[in-house]
Amino acid sequence: MNFLHKSSAVASLLLVSTAFTPLLAAPTLEDVRSTALNSDEIAYDIVEGLTTEIGPRQGGTEAEARARAWSVAKLKSLGFDNVRIEEYQMPTWVRGEETAEIVAPFTQKLAVTALGNSGSTGDKGLEAEIVYFPTLEDLRSAPDGSLKGKIAFVSHSMMRTQDGSSYGAFGPARFVGPNIAAKKGAAAIVIRSAGTDYHRNPHTGNTNFDAGVTPIPAGALSIPDAENLERMLKRGKPVVMKLKLTPKNVGMHVSGNVLAEVKGSNPQLPIIVIACHLDSWDLGTGAIDDAAGCGIIAAAAKHLKTLGQPKRTVRLLWAGAEEVGIWGGKDYGSKHAAEPHALAMESDFGAGKVWAVDFTLPESASEQKAKIIAALAPLGVVPRKTPASGGADIGAIIAAQKLGIIDLQQDGTKYFDLHHTPDDTLDKIDKAEMRQNVAAWVSTLAIVANYEGQLKP
Amino acid sequence: MNFLHKSSAVASLLLVSTAFTPLLAAPTLEDVRSTALNSDEIAYDIVEGLTTEIGPRQGGTEAEARARAWSVAKLKSLGFDNVRIEEYQMPTWVRGEETAEIVAPFTQKLAVTALGNSGSTGDKGLEAEIVYFPTLEDLRSAPDGSLKGKIAFVSHSMMRTQDGSSYGAFGPARFVGPNIAAKKGAAAIVIRSAGTDYHRNPHTGNTNFDAGVTPIPAGALSIPDAENLERMLKRGKPVVMKLKLTPKNVGMHVSGNVLAEVKGSNPQLPIIVIACHLDSWDLGTGAIDDAAGCGIIAAAAKHLKTLGQPKRTVRLLWAGAEEVGIWGGKDYGSKHAAEPHALAMESDFGAGKVWAVDFTLPESASEQKAKIIAALAPLGVVPRKTPASGGADIGAIIAAQKLGIIDLQQDGTKYFDLHHTPDDTLDKIDKAEMRQNVAAWVSTLAIVANYEGQLKP
Repeated sequence: MNFLHKSSAVASLLLVSTAFTPLLAAPTLEDVRSTALNSDEIAYDIVEGLTTEIGPRQGGTEAEARARAWSVAKLKSLGFDNVRIEEYQMPTWVRGEETAEIVAPFTQKLAVTALGNSGSTGDKGLEAEIVYFPTLEDLRSAPDGSLKGKIAFVSHSMMRTQDGSSYGAFGPARFVGPNIAAKKGAAAIVIRSAGTDYHRNPHTGNTNFDAGVTPIPAGALSIPDAENLERMLKRGKPVVMKLKLTPKNVGMHVSGNVLAEVKGSNPQLPIIVIACHLDSWDLGTGAIDDAAGCGIIAAAAKHLKTLGQPKRTVRLLWAGAEEVGIWGGKDYGSKHAAEPHALAMESDFGAGKVWAVDFTLPESASEQKAKIIAALAPLGVVPRKTPASGGADIGAIIAAQKLGIIDLQQDGTKYFDLHHTPDDTLDKIDKAEMRQNVAAWVSTLAIVANYEGQLKP
Repeated sequence: MNFLHKSSAVASLLLVSTAFTPLLAAPTLEDVRSTALNSDEIAYDIVEGLTTEIGPRQGGTEAEARARAWSVAKLKSLGFDNVRIEEYQMPTWVRGEETAEIVAPFTQKLAVTALGNSGSTGDKGLEAEIVYFPTLEDLRSAPDGSLKGKIAFVSHSMMRTQDGSSYGAFGPARFVGPNIAAKKGAAAIVIRSAGTDYHRNPHTGNTNFDAGVTPIPAGALSIPDAENLERMLKRGKPVVMKLKLTPKNVGMHVSGNVLAEVKGSNPQLPIIVIACHLDSWDLGTGAIDDAAGCGIIAAAAKHLKTLGQPKRTVRLLWAGAEEVGIWGGKDYGSKHAAEPHALAMESDFGAGKVWAVDFTLPESASEQKAKIIAALAPLGVVPRKTPASGGADIGAIIAAQKLGIIDLQQDGTKYFDLHHTPDDTLDKIDKAEMRQNVAAWVSTLAIVANYEGQLKP
């Protein structure tokens, strides 16, 4: 920390003396990292703007289109090259009314939200007995047909984890629970939200039904409500819920990716793509998911330019419609499949500090890897042996071209308190932690964007 | 802490030996305090039951009637004397639909809830420009008529305080803001919720309009939404809100108090009344506000009985309809105005630890006061010179009879994160802190209920 403060002071001195001693003024990577860490405003400004001037921006909706227009203006004003939109069409699902009420043996409303791709109960709702499954495995074990006419309720025990691994372990209640319940004949399903908070804000998120399986109404209860329902069930009497979810599929709509570049000096070199997603779920304002990622990568790319033109082109991909099916990432992967890429990186896990770095790089780049580790060490970042795997929006282009990947792993301890809920708002952004992200990103980009060797593993 | 654990061990030994040595078995105040502190289940059980089996129970509604029936059964099962309901009639206001949306210069929905006694916008809602007042004083300073056709937006800067004093300082935005705005001709008002959290759960609560002032639609925005609106306003363009609040007054309905007693051995002595309120706002399940208070006082009264019959009768008042106008407390005060009372106490500030004790007692009771201070000291309770002032539900009987009062002040640091929001749920109860309350209450009651001298100041 002292080291960084010192180098910041040096940077300031250098900047002051620029007019007189231009040769001394070229900032070093350390200077830029320090500036990002101590005073970046770009990342926060982007999150502030998107959450204030746009708010929720679900893939395929007019709000997402407004967000694209906003983003083009913002990225142009930041001086990026080739700022443009690449549109595509996507099937669009929109939320309707949503209420849940226990009607026996007690009477009480519960906080519920529909999962993406949920079926509809119709305007009259449906009333049915709850069948309780403490875990997803219990649901899997239920005999076929045993859920006929019932509402399955699937709980779980997700806890906070720094690396977000509890989402992988317990998220399947949402990802596949509804499909399993539908196949067993359930009239509907409610799950305990895939989250770690205790607020009456259920966590939405996509679920998927197999081809040929008719989507059933599928909702998430807030965690306090799920626990209340479990207490009711423990009383031993049949529990009956009246559930109303009226989402609908509104057909094909336009969505799009926003692209921008820092042009490299050597157009022969395969490019680096850095991604976030511009869309958000409709319940919150998409501050941590994922305006933060867009802010971080744009700020890092902007700071990168202060080091002079990089050798490789660095392309920003502010992807559309990630939440509702990774439509933007897939579109990018197919439209740019023939364009040579070298490396992909993504920021889509909030604005918590980068605490670890993972690599998928060729052995030949081990010196670059060591440089990155050294550049990140003052920020407290731990190098790991886990291979980098990228993220949703770069998945398609990575698969198409077998790219190098660097994952700057963010601290997700509190991420699933907010994820896909109304609580995903600007106030949840810790500016100092976000600046540390920008510092980590610009440090990494400065090394890989100026390395001419092979980056594909 | 050690002291308490030790005395608990002694208590256990004494209990084990009861059958053989009855004279040794009579527990001391220290034993009872220790039992309450280390193992009380009664208080939590009451909160668990009310939140699970009843949930929200707004004054004047059928849910409150269900809560009364539940309470009578519970208090009888705990072995209290004279368990009964005292009914009264009250005017009842009920929530309708509630939505708020900014329609210019940006488009975004905001989380809003109607304040109690709010007027209605009608089913079509109303659309008007926002006039921003950073503080209530700014609203007071607005010229008469200057708000004609506008929606006033009143903000404030309420912070967490241990003693809850920030509610007194900033709550008036809710208590009187709507009345002031109505008198200045505003079409409606929205306030920043009187709360200290950052969740998308607005804080409801009553507001009051002067006689002759027609209630205008009056809503509270969640704090993240209020801050978002402030950011929009800072952009400098006119901000237009579409507001829909459709609450209505549904006329006179039955409400009621639930009473129960620990009968004293000397019926000549004026009684002690200990109060909480049974009703809750409709948004949450009323765990901290105020099932906790009902749990604490009932548990304390039950533990009191293990010390033998007290000299004075201790009456539990689980008051009805506190939130919506203190109807239960007023009814109690008028129905029992002629019945001699000595002292009143109330628990209605959550389940946080008791951290201070205030007294309003005669000089002649100074020895009893010292005993109480000594009994509370092992629990960490600070004696203060602030006179005790009681609470809402005992206000009428105190005023009618000029009673002695003891306030066991609870730590309210986190109380206004939850107060009057959907987040007021069972999971917010810290069982250990609640037990400390029960221990403080039984310690205090054991002294005053067995003191035959004057308690009125």
